[in-house]
Amino acid sequence: MKDASEPYLLTPGPLTTSAETKSAMLKDWGSWDSDFNLLTADIRQQLLAMANADPETFVCVPMQGSGTFAVEATLASVTTQTEPTLVLSNGAYGKRAADILRYLGRDVQVMDKGDYLPPLPEEVDAWLTAHPEIASVVLIHCETSSGILNPLEDIARVVERHGKRFIVDAMSSFGGVPLYLDQIPLDALVSSANKCIEGVPGFGFVIIRRRVLEASAGQSHSLSLDLHAQWDYMERTGQWRFTPPTHSVVAFHAALEQHRAEGGVAARFARYRQNRDVLVNGMRHLGFQTLLEDNWLSPIITTFLSPDDTNFDFKTFYAELKARGFVIYPGKLTEVESFRIGHIGQVDSRVMQVLLEAVEHSLNIMQVSCTRPATFPQPA
Amino acid sequence: MKDASEPYLLTPGPLTTSAETKSAMLKDWGSWDSDFNLLTADIRQQLLAMANADPETFVCVPMQGSGTFAVEATLASVTTQTEPTLVLSNGAYGKRAADILRYLGRDVQVMDKGDYLPPLPEEVDAWLTAHPEIASVVLIHCETSSGILNPLEDIARVVERHGKRFIVDAMSSFGGVPLYLDQIPLDALVSSANKCIEGVPGFGFVIIRRRVLEASAGQSHSLSLDLHAQWDYMERTGQWRFTPPTHSVVAFHAALEQHRAEGGVAARFARYRQNRDVLVNGMRHLGFQTLLEDNWLSPIITTFLSPDDTNFDFKTFYAELKARGFVIYPGKLTEVESFRIGHIGQVDSRVMQVLLEAVEHSLNIMQVSCTRPATFPQPA
Ligand SMILES: Cc1ncc(COP(=O)(O)O)c(C=O)c1O
Ligand SMILES: Cc1ncc(COP(=O)(O)O)c(C=O)c1O
Repeated sequence: MKDASEPYLLTPGPLTTSAETKSAMLKDWGSWDSDFNLLTADIRQQLLAMANADPETFVCVPMQGSGTFAVEATLASVTTQTEPTLVLSNGAYGKRAADILRYLGRDVQVMDKGDYLPPLPEEVDAWLTAHPEIASVVLIHCETSSGILNPLEDIARVVERHGKRFIVDAMSSFGGVPLYLDQIPLDALVSSANKCIEGVPGFGFVIIRRRVLEASAGQSHSLSLDLHAQWDYMERTGQWRFTPPTHSVVAFHAALEQHRAEGGVAARFARYRQNRDVLVNGMRHLGFQTLLEDNWLSPIITTFLSPDDTNFDFKTFYAELKARGFVIYPGKLTEVESFRIGHIGQVDSRVMQVLLEAVEHSLNIMQVSCTRPATFPQPA
Repeated sequence: MKDASEPYLLTPGPLTTSAETKSAMLKDWGSWDSDFNLLTADIRQQLLAMANADPETFVCVPMQGSGTFAVEATLASVTTQTEPTLVLSNGAYGKRAADILRYLGRDVQVMDKGDYLPPLPEEVDAWLTAHPEIASVVLIHCETSSGILNPLEDIARVVERHGKRFIVDAMSSFGGVPLYLDQIPLDALVSSANKCIEGVPGFGFVIIRRRVLEASAGQSHSLSLDLHAQWDYMERTGQWRFTPPTHSVVAFHAALEQHRAEGGVAARFARYRQNRDVLVNGMRHLGFQTLLEDNWLSPIITTFLSPDDTNFDFKTFYAELKARGFVIYPGKLTEVESFRIGHIGQVDSRVMQVLLEAVEHSLNIMQVSCTRPATFPQPA
C-alpha cells in the first residue's frame, strides 16, 4: 500500500495515501491547458455523483487552500450580514466556524455543547423555536477534535422543518461516511482533498445549492475566497480562477479512481469501521477507555483517554509509536488528557493489529499498567 | 531534466519542475510532526536569506492557496481602512491588486498605465506629491501579463523618500531576478512556490517587515488569510495554523536545495536571461516582434505580437507546439493579438533552440509568412 520506510499517518489528514495517488504527481500540468480542465470537470462531476447531488440543483466548486479556506468561502456565501447564524458547536471545528463568522462580522449564536457532547435534534428544535430570527444553521458532521459523529440526518430534518439554511462541515467524513443529498436536506457541504477520498492536501471543495450560490454574487468579503466568482469563472472557462494546486488536483483525480474501484462510499465506510472496531476493541483489551460510548464513535478518528498512570507520557508514547512506524495525534480536549488515533487513509485492519502490538510494546517500555481513568459524563 | 514524454510548460507557472522536486512528493508527511516543522522553519529561513532580509527586521510567512491568496493577506495586513493606497498598475496583476483592495473596502487610487507601459519613478513622485494622504504604494515587479520588468529600485527610493509603505508583488520574479532587501527599501514582498524557485503550486509566501505585521494584529477581514495569526501561530508552535499543502512544501524544500546548488539567484537570473535572449533573437529572426523594447523585457516571460497574416491562428499554433512538446500561453493584452512564451522553470537555452524549430515548423504548417504587425507606442 505504501513505502515500508515511512510511518503510517494515523491522523485525520494529511493521511497515508497510496503509491498510485502520489505517483500521479510525477508530472507537471499546465493549468491553462485543456487536459487539465478535463480533469477538473471530471472531479467536480464525480463529487456531485458521490453525494447523490442532482446537478440541476447542486454545483461543486473547488477552492484552493486548506479545508478552512473552503469553510470560510462557504459561510461567506450562504450566510448574510443581516440575519443571524446558529453554530452547533461541540469541539474545535465548531468553534472555528463561529470564529470565521465573527471575522465576517456576522451575527452569530452558538449552541455550545462543550468538548464532546452532541447537539441533539430536540435541542436544535427548541433553539430555533426560541430564535425565529435565525436564517442559517451550521453543523460539523464528524467533529474531528473528539471523533464524534454528530446526528446529521435528524438535525437536518429539524432545520428543514424550520425553513433555515443548513451548512455542513463534512470535512473529515465526506466520502467515508454515507451522506447523500437525495436523503439529507442541506444547502452546502464542505470537505477537502486530503480526508476520506485520500488525496493530498492543497484544496477543499463545496457542494452547494445552485440558487443559494447564485444569490451570493458580489457579496464576498474576499477576492480569493469568493466562491461565486470561482464558480462563475470555472463555468465560463473550465479553469480555476487563480493558479490551482495542479499536483494535488491530479493526485485527487487518481484517488477518486481508487475510491470508485474500492466500491465507493459504502466500501470505504466498511473498511474504516472495521479499522475502528479492531482498534477500539484492541485498545480496550489493553485497558484504554474511549472518550465516547460506542454509538457516538465515528469511523474516522477515536479519542482515547490517557491512562492515569504517572508513568504515561504522551511525548514518549508518540515517539515510541513513531519509531515503530505510526504517527498518532494529540488530543484536543480542554478538560482531560487524551490522544487520538485516526483510522482513515490507506490503512486496513491488519495495520491496526500491528499498531496494537506497538501500543502494547510502548506501554511496556514506559512501564505503564493501563488503569482506566475516571469516567466522564456520556452523551444521552 | 524531466520525463521526455511530457511537454515543457513555457508558462509563468505552474512550470516544468525537476524530477527531484516532484519525487520529493512520493512520501506522506504528518503536518503535526516535528520532522515537517523543521522543513517549514528551514524554508522560512532560506527565503529570508535569499532576499538578504535581516531576520531582526523581516519575517517570512507562508500562506496556503495560490499566490493571489498571499497578495490578499499582505494587502489586508499592510494597508489600513482609513488611509488611501496607491496601486501602480500596468497590467492584469496590478488590476487584481486594486480589485483586492476594493473587496477590502479600502480607499484605493490607481495610477493606470494601461497594458504595458511602465510606471516611471518621476510619475510616482508627482502622484505622491499631489496626494500626501496616501499611506501605501503597491507595485508589481514583473507584470507577468505583458512580461515587463518594472523599475522597482528607483520607485522604491521615491516611495521611501515620501515615507510611504511599499508592497511589492514579486510573484513571478523572486528567486529569478535579484531583489535584495538590504538594497531596496520595502515593507512587504509576496511570491509563491511555483515560480522562479521552481516548486509546485500550493502556497505563497510573504517577506514582511516585522513591526508592520505586528501592527496588523486583529485587523484581518478573513480568518483563513489572517497573516498575523498565521505568523503568530507558527512562531509559537512551529506548525502551520491550518493543514499545509504538505507535498507542495516538501517539493519546495527540494527546489530550494536545487536553487542553491545552481548558484542561487545570480545563477538562475543568468540562465533565465540566456533563455530569453535565445528565444527573442530566434523569434525575431523568424519575423516575430516583441511587444516591448529590449530594456523592458524581463527574464521571466515575453509577449510576442501575433503576425497579421490571416493564416495565423493561435489555437492551431498552440496545438502544433503542444504536439511538439511545448505548452505556451495566450496573450493578456486588451488592444492587440498576442501570445506569451515563458522562459522560467527547468528549461535551458537548448530547449529554447528546439522550441524555435517547432515554432518555425508550426508556421510552415499554417502557411504563415511572418510579417510584422503594426508597431505600438513604446515606453520611454
Ligand atoms: C471537521 C473539520 N473541519 C475543518 C477542518 C479544517 O481543515 P484544514 O485543516 O484543512 O483547514 C478539519 C481538519 O481536520 C476538520 O476535521
Ligand atoms: C505578478 C503576479 N502576481 C500575482 C499572480 C497570481 O498568482 P496565482 O495565480 O498563484 O494566484 C501571478 C501569477 O502568475 C503573477 O504573475
